[in-house]
This record gives sequence, C-alpha cells and structure tokens, in this order.
Amino acid sequence: MIPRYSRPEMVAIWSPETKFKIWYEIEAHACDAQADLGVIPRENAEAVWKARDVEFDVARIDEIESVTKHDVIAFLTHLAEHIGSEQARFVHQGMTSSDVLDTTLNVQLVRAADILLADMDRVLAALKKRAYEHKDTVRIGRSHGIHAEPTTMGLTFARFYAEMDRGRTRLQAAREEVATGAISGAVGTFANIDPAVEEHVCAKLGLRPEPISTQVIPRDRHAMFFATLGVIASSIENIAIEIRHMQRTEVLEAEEFFSPGQKGSSAMPHKRNPVLTENLTGLARLVRMAVVPAMENVALWHERDISHSSVERGIGPDTTITLDFALNRLAGVIEKLVVYPENMLRNMNKFKGLVMSQRVLLALTQAGVSREDAYRLVQRNAMKVWEQGADFKTELLGDAEVTAALSPAEIEEKFDLGYHTKHVDTIFARVFGENGAH
Amino acid sequence: MIPRYSRPEMVAIWSPETKFKIWYEIEAHACDAQADLGVIPRENAEAVWKARDVEFDVARIDEIESVTKHDVIAFLTHLAEHIGSEQARFVHQGMTSSDVLDTTLNVQLVRAADILLADMDRVLAALKKRAYEHKDTVRIGRSHGIHAEPTTMGLTFARFYAEMDRGRTRLQAAREEVATGAISGAVGTFANIDPAVEEHVCAKLGLRPEPISTQVIPRDRHAMFFATLGVIASSIENIAIEIRHMQRTEVLEAEEFFSPGQKGSSAMPHKRNPVLTENLTGLARLVRMAVVPAMENVALWHERDISHSSVERGIGPDTTITLDFALNRLAGVIEKLVVYPENMLRNMNKFKGLVMSQRVLLALTQAGVSREDAYRLVQRNAMKVWEQGADFKTELLGDAEVTAALSPAEIEEKFDLGYHTKHVDTIFARVFGENGAH
Amino acid sequence: MIPRYSRPEMVAIWSPETKFKIWYEIEAHACDAQADLGVIPRENAEAVWKARDVEFDVARIDEIESVTKHDVIAFLTHLAEHIGSEQARFVHQGMTSSDVLDTTLNVQLVRAADILLADMDRVLAALKKRAYEHKDTVRIGRSHGIHAEPTTMGLTFARFYAEMDRGRTRLQAAREEVATGAISGAVGTFANIDPAVEEHVCAKLGLRPEPISTQVIPRDRHAMFFATLGVIASSIENIAIEIRHMQRTEVLEAEEFFSPGQKGSSAMPHKRNPVLTENLTGLARLVRMAVVPAMENVALWHERDISHSSVERGIGPDTTITLDFALNRLAGVIEKLVVYPENMLRNMNKFKGLVMSQRVLLALTQAGVSREDAYRLVQRNAMKVWEQGADFKTELLGDAEVTAALSPAEIEEKFDLGYHTKHVDTIFARVFGENGAH
Amino acid sequence: MIPRYSRPEMVAIWSPETKFKIWYEIEAHACDAQADLGVIPRENAEAVWKARDVEFDVARIDEIESVTKHDVIAFLTHLAEHIGSEQARFVHQGMTSSDVLDTTLNVQLVRAADILLADMDRVLAALKKRAYEHKDTVRIGRSHGIHAEPTTMGLTFARFYAEMDRGRTRLQAAREEVATGAISGAVGTFANIDPAVEEHVCAKLGLRPEPISTQVIPRDRHAMFFATLGVIASSIENIAIEIRHMQRTEVLEAEEFFSPGQKGSSAMPHKRNPVLTENLTGLARLVRMAVVPAMENVALWHERDISHSSVERGIGPDTTITLDFALNRLAGVIEKLVVYPENMLRNMNKFKGLVMSQRVLLALTQAGVSREDAYRLVQRNAMKVWEQGADFKTELLGDAEVTAALSPAEIEEKFDLGYHTKHVDTIFARVFGENGAH
Repeated sequence: MIPRYSRPEMVAIWSPETKFKIWYEIEAHACDAQADLGVIPRENAEAVWKARDVEFDVARIDEIESVTKHDVIAFLTHLAEHIGSEQARFVHQGMTSSDVLDTTLNVQLVRAADILLADMDRVLAALKKRAYEHKDTVRIGRSHGIHAEPTTMGLTFARFYAEMDRGRTRLQAAREEVATGAISGAVGTFANIDPAVEEHVCAKLGLRPEPISTQVIPRDRHAMFFATLGVIASSIENIAIEIRHMQRTEVLEAEEFFSPGQKGSSAMPHKRNPVLTENLTGLARLVRMAVVPAMENVALWHERDISHSSVERGIGPDTTITLDFALNRLAGVIEKLVVYPENMLRNMNKFKGLVMSQRVLLALTQAGVSREDAYRLVQRNAMKVWEQGADFKTELLGDAEVTAALSPAEIEEKFDLGYHTKHVDTIFARVFGENGAH
Repeated sequence: MIPRYSRPEMVAIWSPETKFKIWYEIEAHACDAQADLGVIPRENAEAVWKARDVEFDVARIDEIESVTKHDVIAFLTHLAEHIGSEQARFVHQGMTSSDVLDTTLNVQLVRAADILLADMDRVLAALKKRAYEHKDTVRIGRSHGIHAEPTTMGLTFARFYAEMDRGRTRLQAAREEVATGAISGAVGTFANIDPAVEEHVCAKLGLRPEPISTQVIPRDRHAMFFATLGVIASSIENIAIEIRHMQRTEVLEAEEFFSPGQKGSSAMPHKRNPVLTENLTGLARLVRMAVVPAMENVALWHERDISHSSVERGIGPDTTITLDFALNRLAGVIEKLVVYPENMLRNMNKFKGLVMSQRVLLALTQAGVSREDAYRLVQRNAMKVWEQGADFKTELLGDAEVTAALSPAEIEEKFDLGYHTKHVDTIFARVFGENGAH
Repeated sequence: MIPRYSRPEMVAIWSPETKFKIWYEIEAHACDAQADLGVIPRENAEAVWKARDVEFDVARIDEIESVTKHDVIAFLTHLAEHIGSEQARFVHQGMTSSDVLDTTLNVQLVRAADILLADMDRVLAALKKRAYEHKDTVRIGRSHGIHAEPTTMGLTFARFYAEMDRGRTRLQAAREEVATGAISGAVGTFANIDPAVEEHVCAKLGLRPEPISTQVIPRDRHAMFFATLGVIASSIENIAIEIRHMQRTEVLEAEEFFSPGQKGSSAMPHKRNPVLTENLTGLARLVRMAVVPAMENVALWHERDISHSSVERGIGPDTTITLDFALNRLAGVIEKLVVYPENMLRNMNKFKGLVMSQRVLLALTQAGVSREDAYRLVQRNAMKVWEQGADFKTELLGDAEVTAALSPAEIEEKFDLGYHTKHVDTIFARVFGENGAH
Repeated sequence: MIPRYSRPEMVAIWSPETKFKIWYEIEAHACDAQADLGVIPRENAEAVWKARDVEFDVARIDEIESVTKHDVIAFLTHLAEHIGSEQARFVHQGMTSSDVLDTTLNVQLVRAADILLADMDRVLAALKKRAYEHKDTVRIGRSHGIHAEPTTMGLTFARFYAEMDRGRTRLQAAREEVATGAISGAVGTFANIDPAVEEHVCAKLGLRPEPISTQVIPRDRHAMFFATLGVIASSIENIAIEIRHMQRTEVLEAEEFFSPGQKGSSAMPHKRNPVLTENLTGLARLVRMAVVPAMENVALWHERDISHSSVERGIGPDTTITLDFALNRLAGVIEKLVVYPENMLRNMNKFKGLVMSQRVLLALTQAGVSREDAYRLVQRNAMKVWEQGADFKTELLGDAEVTAALSPAEIEEKFDLGYHTKHVDTIFARVFGENGAH
C-alpha cells in the first residue's frame, strides 16, 4: 500500500481491526448455529456476543501470536480474555483456521468490490456528463496517430463510458465469484461441523456457501477477481493515454485541471503536465501485476498449501486500494478536464481538407470510376496537399479527371462536417439508451 | 503454434483459408445490405456470391500483398480476379480494413470458444463419472502436503468438476464478450456506411453489433477473453499438480494410463512418469502468458494504433490451440486415470490413527476438558506416534488423563471412517444437483 | 512462430533438421570420448561418423516416435538404420535423454544469441550513424509530452544507442549463462558415464560443462536468458514509441520511410502511418510475455520434471525469432527514418521563447532575486504567452521587475540555442568515445 | 510492504527520512561542485552543510507539499527553513527535480542490493555447510517425482549453492546497472549545469555518472534490476519446493525446524507443516510480479513521462523488502533444516533394487546383448517388482536370459551404492573449488 495512492475507506477494510472484527463475527455466528444444532450450549453461544462492541487489541493479539506462532489461536486466546475462558471454550469448535481466514478474505473482497463499484459509478457519471456536453464537439479522429476522419469529443467520452460500463458488469460478476464462505473443516468434509453452520454464517455475512471446499476456498475464484481488476486497470490506462495525447503541446485539445497555486515544474513554470493521467498509467501497471500471481495461486497442493497467503496479504489490499484510488483520480480528471474545442478545429484543419479524402474516393467510385483509378486520383491530389501545403478541395476542383466525374457542387458537398456526425445520435442511443436512459 | 500440442479443428480456424473465407462472407453480406439500402446496385451485390464456393488462393493473395503491402487490398484485388473487376467495384465500399479484420477476429474467437466449451464438457463429463465412481473411495486429505483428515477421491474429482464448471461459465461469458462485430468505418462514425450494414453483417455471422467502436473493436473485450483462458489454464494446472502428486513413487495413489509398448524412459524401464500432467503444467504457463500482452493491448492510441495486431497474430491462435489441446489431454488423463484405492488406505494408515487427533481433541473438549488441556493431551500422545511409531488409539486408551474424560468405547468410536464421509452425499448434491442431475 | 515476423536464419536454428543434427553431433562426440576412455570400442565410435553428412529423415523419426512415444529412442533407432544396429549399439551408452535434449537446447540458444548480437550490431551502427548525422539538429525536448528545453535529434539517437549497447552487453552475459552442456546421466551423478565425456562434448560444441546438473541443466540460466530478451524488447518499444510520437500528424518531426507504391490505407490515401514502429510495440509485448513462464520453469520437482519442456518448445523459437525480426525491422526503420529538421524548429517555436523560461529563472536568481520571486516573475510572463499568444522575450523586456534585474542584452542572450547544445560533444564522447571510437 | 515480511534495515532504506537525507546530500554536494566552478558563492555552499545533522521533519515537508503539490520544492522550502532562505537561494540551481529523485532512487537501489548481496552470502554459507555435512548422505534421485537413481543430499545442497551463486553474480551485475546518477537538467543537456557537478555528486555517492540521460535515468537499467530479482526469487522457489516435497508425510526426508511451543495447527496437533517454505513459494511470486511493470516502465514518452514513478513507489520498496525477508527466511530454513538420512534410505529401498535397472541395462548391453533385447530383459523383471513386489536382484538372478549374459557376481556388483556416489567429490570440486576453497 502506497499511502499517497490510497483512500481511507478502502484502507480500513484491510486493517487488523476490521479483520479481527470479521473473525469475531464468524465465530459468534458459528456458535449460534452450533447452539441451534444442540452441539454447544446456548449460553456459551450467547456469551460470545458479550464482545460485540469490543475493539480488539491488535498489539495484544500480536503479542500472543509471537508465542503461539498461530494467528487464529492468538485471536481466540484474546477473545477468551474478554468473555472468560470458561464461556469461550466452545468457540471455534469443529472449525479450522482457514474456515475463518478464507471466509474473512472473501468478506473483505466483497466489501472492496462494493467500493470499487461505487467508484466506477462515479467514473461512469462523469463520462456520461462530459459525453453529452461534447456530443457535437467535432475533432479529428486519428488512426496510427495520423489524422483520419472527423469524429466528436462526445463519441470519445461515450466509448470510454461503454468500456467502463463493461468493466462494471465484469466487476459485478467478479464480486459474485468471491462472495462465498466456507465452514467445512480441516479438509472440507464437514466431519466435525454440520453444513448448517456454514449456511448460517454465510447468510449472516451476505455470502453463499462454497459448494465444495477443501481446507480452503478454491483460488480460481480469486484469480478471476484479480484478472477482472487487471482488465479494468487496462481500461483506465486506455483513457489516461488518450488524455495524455490530447494534452501534448502540439495537440492541446484538452488539459487536466490545473489548480491555482499548483506548480507544474520547479524549473519550467509555463508547463502544465498531465501528471494525473501519467500517474494513472503507472497505477494501471501496479493493479495489473497482481494478475499473474493470483493465477499462480490456483494450483495449491492437495487440500491446501499456504503459498497463496503471502501473495494475498500483498495483492489483496494493494490492488484494491490502488484501483480505488485510481478510479477516483480518474473520475476527478474527467469531471474537471478542460476541453479546447477551438484547438480541435485548428488541428483538424491542419491539412486543409485532406481528411476528407475517403469521401472523395467513395464519391468517385460511385460516379463510375474504378476503385483503382479513384484511388490514384485521390492520392495524386492528396500528395500535393501533403508535400506542398496545397488546399485539397482547390486541387480537386482543378483536376480535370476528377471534375469529369464529379461536379464542383458535388465536390463541395464532400467537405461538409455534418456528414461525419450524422450518426452520433444513433451511437449515443446504443450506449446510453434512448434519451440517455441507461 | 506448436504442432505436437495442436488439434486440427482448432488449427483450421486460424488458417489463411478460413480467414479469407470469413473476409469474403463479411464483404458479401455487406454488399447485400448496401444493396438493400440502395447504395449499390443489387446485381453487383449478387455477383459477389459467385465466389461462394471459391477456395481463395493464399499464395496469390500473398503475392499481391508483397506489392501493395496491404492485406485487405490484396484480398479485394484477388476477389476481383474471381468475379470481375467491373462487378467487384462496389465491394468494400464505405468500409475500412479493420471492419473486416476485427469482425473476422471475433468470428474466429467465437468459434474457438465454442470448441473450448465442448472441450470443457468432455472434461466435466469425465470428472463427474470418476467422481461418482470414487465417491466413497477413502483417502487421506492433506494440507501442506501433510496428512490431515480422511476425505474421498470422489470429493477430489467433484471439486475439480465444480472448478471446471465455474471455468465453463466464465468462458461462456468471455465468448459473449467477443461476440461483436463492427462495420463502422475509419473512425467508427458510420460516416460512409449506414449502421444497417453492420447490423446485417453481424446478424448473419452470429455477432452483436459493437455499440460503439472506433476504427477497431475495443480491446478490453479481448483482454477479458484471454484473462479468462488464463484462469482456466490455472485450473488445469491445479488438477495436473494433484495427479502428479498422486503418482509420486512414495504416494502412488493414482497413475496416468500407461499404454502397452510405451517406454517411460530410455534408461529406467521401470519408470512410469506422469508426463502428461507435467506437460499440462507447462501448457498452462503458455496459455497464461497471453494475459498480460492482451491487457497491454487495451490502451491503443486515439481511434486505433496497430500494436495489438502482431500480439493477436501470436496469442490468438497459440493460446486457443494450446488450451484446446490441453483440455483434451486433460480429459483423456482423467478418463483413463488408474486409481489405487488400496494404496490410499495404506498411506492413510501410515501413522496409525494420528489423523484422528482432531476428533479426539474435540471429544475431550466436549467432555469438559479445557481447550488448552485437551490440546496438550492430544499432542502428548500424538508425539509418541510420531516419534516412536506407537499406535495412537492404544496410547490414548492408556493415558489416564484421557480415559478420565472419555470411555474406551468413546475413544474407539473416534476412529470410525464413516464419521468423515457422512456428508459426501450432501456435497455431491451441491455440486451435481440432487441425483447428479446437473 | 508467426511467419510474417520471422527470418529464415533464425527459423533454421529451430527446425527439426537442425535439432537432429545437433543430437547426432552430441552422440557422435560422446562416442569418441567413450572410446578414448576405453568404455566402448573405437571402431563403433568411428562408425557413428559415417552418418556425418546424412540429412536425417524427420518424417521417419516421427513415425518411429509414434510407436515408441519417446523422441530420443526414435532418433537412435533411425540412426541405427543408417549406421547399422550392430555398430550403433554403443551409441547413447550411459547417457540419458536429457543429456542430449538439454545440451541441444543450449546450443540452439547460443546460436540464436549470436544472431541477435549481430542484429544488435546492425541497430547500433544505424543509431550511431544517425546520431552523428543529426548531432546538431535542434529539436525541443519534452517531458510529460510538453515542451521543456531544446535538445538535439542526435542526442535522441545517442541515448538509444547507449541503451541498446547496454542491451548488447546484457545479451552477451545471457549468452554465457546458457552456454553450458551436461552429459551427467539420469540424476546428474555421472554414475554411468565419466565426466570426461561431458567435457569432450562441451568443448566440441563450444559450451562449458555445467558444474552441477541433475537430469537437466538448471533453468535459472534460461530464466535469465529470456528475462534479458524481455529487457531488450522493452528498449525496442522505447525507440518505437519515440518514432510513433514524432510521426504524429501534429508533430511530424520524422516519418518511417514510405516506399513508392506502398498504400497507407485502403480508405485514406494521404495517410502515412508509422505501422512498423507500431508493429514493433506489439512485438515487444510478444517477446516480453516469455519472461514469466521462463521464471515459472525454474522450480522443477527434485531432479527434474518435464513441465518446462512444452514452455520451451514455445518460447525458445518464438521469442528468439520474434526478437530477431524486431531488431532487423528496427534497424531498417532507423536507417531509413526520414527526419524533418524544419518541422522540429517550427514545433520548438510554437510558444515563442517559452521554453527558455528555465534560463530566465536561473538568471534572475543569479542576479540576486530570491528563488520565489524569480519564479513568480517568470510565471507571470509565461502565462501571457500561454494564454494570449504573446512573445516571451518581448514580455520580459517589458516587465519592469525583470529589467530591474537583467539588462536587455542579458535577456536576449538567454534565447541563444547554442546555450543548450554546448555539451553535446561531451555527451557524444561519453557515449561513443572520443572521436566516436567506440 | 507487508510488515510481517519485512526487516528493519531494508525498510529504513525506503523511509521518508532516508529519502530526504539523500536529497539533502545530493543538493549539498551539488552546491560544493557549483562553488568549485565559481557558479555560486562558496559561503552559500558551505552554509548548506549546516543542516548536516538535521533530521528533516517529514510532516512539515508533507504540509508544504500539500500546498505546492511538488515534493522537491516542498523539501527545498523546508531546507531553507533550516539554513535561512538567503543562504539557501543557490540550492538546486540549474537542477531539475528528477536530478534529485532519480539519483536518490539509484542510491536506494544500490543500498538495497548491498543488503541483498549480504543476504545471499548468508544463504550461500548455509548451503555450503549443509552440503558438506550431507555430502555422502545417500538418497534417491527422482525425475518426474518417480524414483530414478541414487544421489546424495549433499549434491542437492550443492546445486542450490551453485544456483544461488549464479544469482549472486547476477545481482552484482544488476547493482552495477543501477549504480548511476544524473545531474543533467530538464532534458539531459546540461544546459544549466556543468557536467562536473554530476561527476562530483556521483563520486560522493558511490555512483557513476549516467553517460546520457534525459530528464531521467533510462529505465532499462531498472528493468534489468527487477528482472534479476525475479530470477533470484525463482531460485528461492526452487529450493522451497524441494523442501516442501521432502517434508511430505509419505516422503519425510527432511523437516523445517519446529521450535518447542510452536503449534502446527489449531486442529491437528501432530502436524508439522512446511509453512516457511510454502510462504517462500508465495513470496517468490510477489517478487516476480514486479518484473513486467518494471519492463513496461522502460518506454517513457520523449525525454520522460512520470508513469514509472508510481510503479517504482510500489515495487522499489516492496520487492527489495520482500526479497530481503525471503532470503533470510530461506537461510534460516536451510541452517536449521532437520534431515532424516534413515528415511532417505527407507524410501530408496521401497522397490528393492528397481532403481538399479539402468545399471543392469547398461551391463547387459556391454555384455553383448542388443539394446532392444537388454531393454526387454530389464523391463520384464522390473515389472515383476513393480506389480508383485518381488526383489529385483533375485528376479534377475533367476532369469536365464540375464544370467546367460551376466554372472551372479556381476549382477551383485550392480547393486553397490558406491557406484553412484563415486563422482561426488568431482562435482563438489567444480562447485566449491578444490577443498571447498570457493
């Protein structure tokens, strides 16, 4: 966890205090279920709830663990200090440490996912707002970094919306993947504990019982979870790269918001650097790097080995905290992005009309010129624009082979921007629903 | 593509012949839609279908490409050689190369996914069959590679079934992710082509129109696809590792089928090596390595750059071909796995009764012994078994502190295997449905 | 292996024919050494060399393998068909298959490394030539994609040279890592074969004996090899990204060479796309993806498992072939890169003089203005340039607080480009040696 | 950074206090060099050293940064609070933030590398000691997890030594890679600062001047650094996996040291789990996951973008801290590993004599039996051992076809263990030098 790239709500999920609280809840609910089954006395189960409002003492638990070298035993010992060792003696009965640890991890991941879903909602809202705001703001579309044909800034926002919305759907699915709990004992056979306990505890914690576990919950679920975060991070990078390109000195179609008093550089005071989106590019790499170890965690030996644990101690908090931060940073960037429509027009007109070459090519073909000839004609005039700075339309109007096929009015019409934006509403309806209802 | 790890049906999806066939179908369907719209003459659209049964000449297309340095133009030139350049002149009108290329890639990925889904069905069927066959075959469960408590071989198969079944669900979702097509022009605005063309072509090819594309279909879809294959590969590794462990000389609870005449080693004829599952372990790495580059492909510049293309030329075929092979190899291994129940029993009894220590611990606690004392009593006797080879039950029966809490009959009862398998049916019902109906 | 991204010389290293030839040489040299030791008859060793000029029949060997399911036995059987089974009976004596396979892999990797080293020499030569050609071609240096201070195109080439030169040094080290062979028997103890055989075979093949092997050569060597290729690929990406940026429509400081007759796009004939460097960006991802599986290959079970083998069948050829292709493509791009010095100047002057702000800031400080005040003064005038398109020098000359500290002549002097290039020779001497002697 | 997997010395390298201290030293040394050059007054340079013993106030610097949003400016402002803003006004003159930040990062990485090198020395010492201790402790060598031929425990330790020693050599090279500093200004041209400053500062900090930098030190150096750590982590995993296998219940040839009072499991008191080596397996994944993002960091835009920074804030500390911890944990495991030679013998004899089949095969061939026939004879008898539990030697002695070729004494001789260990000294001399001098 890198403090400057973290937000308190997500950090709190991964604190020792939160962890012990969840452990406690699992143990207490399990005691209730055991009492329901008649396995342990009701009064012992009820006694556990005496610690309901206790803030567990992390330092004390660590101290005990330094002796027992076992974290769950340390916690149980500490719990007994609160509710009395006599009352506590049925706590954890029939359970194995992993019943507590794995169920807790999944509670944490589900809570983390819920925050991330809310984060994505913020990003989506910002993208939608900016998309409608710039639905008709024309800018040049680029392939290979080279001017292609006109598009609009709204379409750029809209496609990021669509991509993030897919990410949200995937995250919802990933959340369901890890929303399971297991109280199934040392090798998953429920030998020492009735499946009803698992069902009760999971219901109380908002989880589904893991249909078949070993000592642990199977790690393909977690691999899928982190892989999904990796894809979302890649989409963040995608948006970040677009903004970084737009802010380049030569392009300058947009800038990250630059607060008064902010210094861009110690040496070059005129500079406004897209440092937030550059940062997002790096954060995306950090999120993505968890994917491979999460996949390497799947193949545990027999009913479990503990190799996955240290990996998850790292990537569990780090990846969710970083992604939470990145999504919020991204939302802020989008919400406050300064867009320069006039620069967009200036850039588009850099090669006067050249970007309309595709239309002319098509018109020539439709006028009966063979595809090969049409290509040659367009290319011939385009090269004059490119190499000599000529105006494309003027050249076409002066090319006898072209005017033999197309009238001056037809040529003029090919340079109408509305031609390129005529389906923007259609696309918006696809992305946002009719009237932006989605 | 590694020939020895490939199967012809999947390889065929990625052949140049198949690719050109799909290109052709896209162009032909697009002409139909253009004719419907009145954009091009009906007869030209119909003329394209004259090439319906043509096997396109890959060498000829390559030859043309060596001049034009553009693959789609080369193909169109070749197509014109078949249907006549006059008739062909409306083909591809208003489209951009990527309309063809990206839609084709997704057709290939969908077909690949369908094969993979069938492969997984084969794996699932094998796992289910073997699970029921060995539902009650008791073996020792192990955590950390160390004996824990009894489980059954059927539960092992059943949990792999559940994991693969999750994988299948994920693959189905990943298939839907990439089941889109785009005919939206140079920057995705439909400036030169009506969205109706996209709708028609997609419908004919079993795809959904991509709601918003640029020049290309957004690559987060493909990242999710390959990430999903990576998780499935990790599950294959999980099963492979289990079998490799079972076949170890000292364990020998199962063996890969060893055909008569097969030589295990040039030097050690007695050896039967789990080479298929070792191979699967390696193949899993090969599938998984596509995940990161697929994610790096997401952030393309503006409306597209072509950096993703070479990556996909590699991982598109390689990953699906390798996974197809691996799933089938895995299915074969499971179908024919030789299981040794008697060795399972022998292994379980290696430390006579020690694996029952958890039960004894629990019984002592329930009989009123404090958890700490019960732990001490169990540990004391367990250590005699561990260090001196004593029999656990005998030691317990001879320990006055133990017998003060538990009668001999109660102690005896703790060594009943049925105790551990009593919930197997419950778990099977969870995994396979009541009566294996799933 | 993707045919379009491959070159025949590297492909040949990985052909079955080459592989069998190396197997043969290992076996033949081993027989010589065994004869020297008196372990096998000299005449049998000599007989093996009868096959010296044989082109082994791959199809025949495959046919035999389909029966024996063991590739080395299949080869030995086929070899016996050439030299007679009586004469052949001492071939491979005391050896294990991996002695042949692993030593062969390393021969292939060493040969591949030698080609790659030559490739890098070509890249280095091109970078050096272009660096000197454009040593004094001034362009704007950019941080965060934003204009910073002037630099020269020669420095850009020079730093890529320095980076590639480091890559070459690393590759040389990686080559040495894998330049070992092992003929040490089934578990590496030389039980059945004298270490002298290993020494002889390695000497003949240009390898060092692996100091301690098991059945296999340790895979940390190969992990380091592929990791090194991954770093080199990342440097290729670094250069490719720079060129892609330079070719952007709005920047246009350089272009990939565009051969006459080449078509940039089927739809937009004016476009010249940096497709080669975009392609290199993708190829870098393909090379890099081998790094993680190569590292996962290190931890083999006990004296070996064969999980690494399938991975190496993939990444061995694929990675070296792709990198070989990429390095040559890169060399070609650099050799023929079209550089536009006039555009560089035009871009640099986009914000008249603003890039000199750092110098002015410094001059103010040196003239006794506090750092904070100097910053404020520079920022004040810079913002007028930025927001109103003013000329920086003019503004400074008109700012009383500035002219109170600096005379007009002093201000003028700050806009001299020579100030920025005065250490170029020093840097060139560091990179290329005095007089470019390196 | 995961606290439980960290050691204070390495953590300290990455503390804000250490970072600011290095920043300070860079600035102070730079002032000295500037004074030597006559660029700034000597007394100002000397004044900076007044803060020599200051513990910089991290909270105060953070507070300033929250206003300036620039960390180096915040630090310089704070520094001025210590030495007076008048005296401080030449500090940082002509420098850019990255001069400080990048040089500092490399100082930290070099210090981290030095700790890691010492860690590896501890691991190497432990491996060497245990190797000599068990040089002649015979155990079965295994390929594919299956018994192959005898080897010794000493050879196992020795090969891990050789592997770690290669890792140490690589780490030394990686340390040299990052032992550079740069004080070259905003785009690396030394426009505002003489190269002599860089040379002075680097010399004082134990670094080499970066021959050619931009605003930053090129990141291929860091990619190589982290790639090297990834290979070392993979070697740790390799050793960990071996120990985990040895500790399996059925194998039990070694155990991690189990301190009195340590509880292996809350439920199964008899269990001694190889949790340290399982943990190391996971830590290896954590170290390795830094490799790909470090490579993705290489391709920065033009003279720099800041995407690498967040990545390095994560992987810089995390990877070195984790690897430091892992190497020390590994050293402890090796130093205290409990080895069971008697179990090694028992395991080896599981299939009485079968592991000697290779020798018998060879002897038959040398006695004139064809390879094919010899293979058949050995296989025939081996299968009786495998399937019926027969004794291999007895079977051979009773097989007329075998005894036709080999006398009983010759057969007896094939079962001598000394045959397999006769070259152990040779191998030890290769690894450790004659008499263990290395």
